[in-house]
Amino acid sequence: MYFQTKIRLMKHVFFSAILMISILTVHSQEEAAVIKSLFDEALTDRTSYENLRILCKAHKGRITGSPEAEAAVQFTFELMKNMDIDTVFKQAVKVPRWVRGEPELAKIISAEYGEFDVSVTALGTSIGTGPSGLSANIVEVQNFAELEELGKEFISGKIVFFNHPMDPTMLNTFSAYGKAAAYRTKGAARAVVYGATGVVVRSLTTALDDFPHTGVMRYDLEQPKIPAVAISTQDADLLSNRLKADPALKFWFRTNCQTLPDVESHNVIGELRGTEFPDEIITVGGHLDAWETGEGAHDDGAGCMQSIEVLRLFNKLGIRPKRTIRAVMFMDEEVAQSGGKEYAHLAELKKEQHYFALEADRGALMPRGFGVSGPEERVIKILALKKYFEPYRIYEFKKGGGGVDIGPLRTFDIPLASYIPDEQRYFDFHHSGFDTFEQVNFREFQLGSAAIASFIYLIDRYDL
Amino acid sequence: MYFQTKIRLMKHVFFSAILMISILTVHSQEEAAVIKSLFDEALTDRTSYENLRILCKAHKGRITGSPEAEAAVQFTFELMKNMDIDTVFKQAVKVPRWVRGEPELAKIISAEYGEFDVSVTALGTSIGTGPSGLSANIVEVQNFAELEELGKEFISGKIVFFNHPMDPTMLNTFSAYGKAAAYRTKGAARAVVYGATGVVVRSLTTALDDFPHTGVMRYDLEQPKIPAVAISTQDADLLSNRLKADPALKFWFRTNCQTLPDVESHNVIGELRGTEFPDEIITVGGHLDAWETGEGAHDDGAGCMQSIEVLRLFNKLGIRPKRTIRAVMFMDEEVAQSGGKEYAHLAELKKEQHYFALEADRGALMPRGFGVSGPEERVIKILALKKYFEPYRIYEFKKGGGGVDIGPLRTFDIPLASYIPDEQRYFDFHHSGFDTFEQVNFREFQLGSAAIASFIYLIDRYDL
Repeated sequence: MYFQTKIRLMKHVFFSAILMISILTVHSQEEAAVIKSLFDEALTDRTSYENLRILCKAHKGRITGSPEAEAAVQFTFELMKNMDIDTVFKQAVKVPRWVRGEPELAKIISAEYGEFDVSVTALGTSIGTGPSGLSANIVEVQNFAELEELGKEFISGKIVFFNHPMDPTMLNTFSAYGKAAAYRTKGAARAVVYGATGVVVRSLTTALDDFPHTGVMRYDLEQPKIPAVAISTQDADLLSNRLKADPALKFWFRTNCQTLPDVESHNVIGELRGTEFPDEIITVGGHLDAWETGEGAHDDGAGCMQSIEVLRLFNKLGIRPKRTIRAVMFMDEEVAQSGGKEYAHLAELKKEQHYFALEADRGALMPRGFGVSGPEERVIKILALKKYFEPYRIYEFKKGGGGVDIGPLRTFDIPLASYIPDEQRYFDFHHSGFDTFEQVNFREFQLGSAAIASFIYLIDRYDL
Repeated sequence: MYFQTKIRLMKHVFFSAILMISILTVHSQEEAAVIKSLFDEALTDRTSYENLRILCKAHKGRITGSPEAEAAVQFTFELMKNMDIDTVFKQAVKVPRWVRGEPELAKIISAEYGEFDVSVTALGTSIGTGPSGLSANIVEVQNFAELEELGKEFISGKIVFFNHPMDPTMLNTFSAYGKAAAYRTKGAARAVVYGATGVVVRSLTTALDDFPHTGVMRYDLEQPKIPAVAISTQDADLLSNRLKADPALKFWFRTNCQTLPDVESHNVIGELRGTEFPDEIITVGGHLDAWETGEGAHDDGAGCMQSIEVLRLFNKLGIRPKRTIRAVMFMDEEVAQSGGKEYAHLAELKKEQHYFALEADRGALMPRGFGVSGPEERVIKILALKKYFEPYRIYEFKKGGGGVDIGPLRTFDIPLASYIPDEQRYFDFHHSGFDTFEQVNFREFQLGSAAIASFIYLIDRYDL
């Protein structure tokens, strides 16, 4: 009797297991079919790509605080209003207003070799030189140690040229960028200590090109402010060579940038209401502001349009999420990150329940995977979604994610994710005149949209 | 005694195993270090990329049989002569000489809606229309079944417009290309059976663009020849829409292409002699000829320059291969594949010992992996090299490889491999005016060179 019961029990366990596996397999096949339909639809429909074109071409120059940025706010607001989305609204945000003014000019002036124009661009938040520009001898350094070594005696009254290239041997170009970025962000603040009158920073790009690549810099509020520009990598090499030939040469540059009073701008948000847990919010977003030297196509018009595309794909395929999905166009990622901060601040004020957030702000090249930070147990479950993406040649699911805009949501103790496309080409475009719509490939862009939509779909579906 | 011996034996086996594992680990670390140095060098040195620029800009128009192709032969010959390479030589090959003549013209002519210029390009080996062009009513079909259904009665005297798009939902764009290619290669031969006077084929590209994409076509020698052109995808959509509005519209096009007598051309070969087995040959190659509508940057200037770069990298890092490594610039891949055939033919004649061959002819986007065909046991061992490439985000090692140029080497019963870069963007460029040097990214190109060099290094080192 006991023996028979045991066999029956074992049979029961056995068949239950089979049943479970079958259910899971059926489930998993069902999910795989939904994902396939997301990719198929994304690769067939050009709406989102066309909207990216409009954002890039009609709303170029949408730097934080500019009328162009407000026009982009209105464009995306109306774009979502015209979609079948439950709620579309704006959040007011106070943002800085830095303006570039007239195009920058710069020259190498050598008594021996003559004059030569070079390409520079003011760094974001830099002061201008005034109408007659700044002219001085120029000292090349590779890094802060060299600056320190030369000291006040040698630097004082001169322009410092930080010629620190991004390390080409680093496979992860974002890491190489991170390693070299301090010369752009802190170069002026560090050089002024030694009496420098201005700084010229080698552009942060892996390309050898004629575009100066801008980006934000920060002054030390205890120190005087000096003008700072980025120089194209071709011209950085040229300047370096000319300096070897004639160390006495002068460098002249003129920038007309200035900081005006803060203005009101907006985050733009579109919501698909959840069917089961409408109060739980999943955020997917990019930033709407962009450096006005280019069109902000990869950085980050693409992330904005991919976020809106998640909603379109869900609607088109009749996917009703359990939780509320929000596509968020963050304002002011590039200068003061005020949009992301305000989004989290309002979420706390309103006691919103945030469940998960993803940021798409690494360009729109081939999808590579996702990175996730947050509560260990949830992160591990989320990373296990990898298997659904392998058929789409998306292999990289790793710990460590988030972004500048969703970062402030970390107080909610939720998983924060980054969408990770390939980044070999990314710094060719980044913050330069080369970041145009033409550099975004339709298929790579839409494979990204489908990957993000699938990722969010699975997280919501499996309550991860 | 016996017991003690056994223990000693076990100890011996145990320590031998440990030793073996240590040696293998050391070995494997050594190889990993060599591979790292190959990638570092490739990502730092711009020689090969600069040579690609010269090939694209100074040797544009290098279609098989042209003076430009012969100039490219001379350029690569001298390029290798100036490197520290043991042997550089040419192989004479008889190749076809098809010339495009004056730029093609085409128009939609509607009595109701007026005239509209569209972008077309003659397909390779097509006959021309003659100076006054060809004008006729035009019939749109999606596929051969529709052609057959319409039949002689409807088709006779008209131009057939094959409007078969590449399937955008296929992730592998080469597969989508393969599925749609028959309308380009055989469209004229199939349509003439029903009395068509010419064919217009939708360009084989996943892009929606204004470039017509050319490529080879083949006549049925039993049938009359009719002129064939590719139309850009934008204009294919336009033509399709206009035909819906006015089915009676006429299509006019003029092509001046013609086939001249065959000429002599060359494969160009550079050899690094093997130190241990100099008679065993490892081939790595791309093709030097290219459609003259573009610069042949991705197709296949890049594959040629990557092959030469393998030799430069080996030399630079002091890697002495056991076997002879040959970089081969094949001639005439696009039209009659005579270079690849001649290479294998001469190898047989001279009783060469071929060991392994790799073809790089899928563009120079991000490396994805390698495909290998050939003797099962060797293929399996080669595919196991995957682990060395994962740190470089190269994950795809699969069965099935080779290419048009190395294909004829299959009589040697050796592994034939393809270098596989990502291909989402590839058909944007392929056979069109958009295939320019500017579309090749330095890092993607050189990651490919390093991957190919590493792959060949490991195969030679481990005798795979």
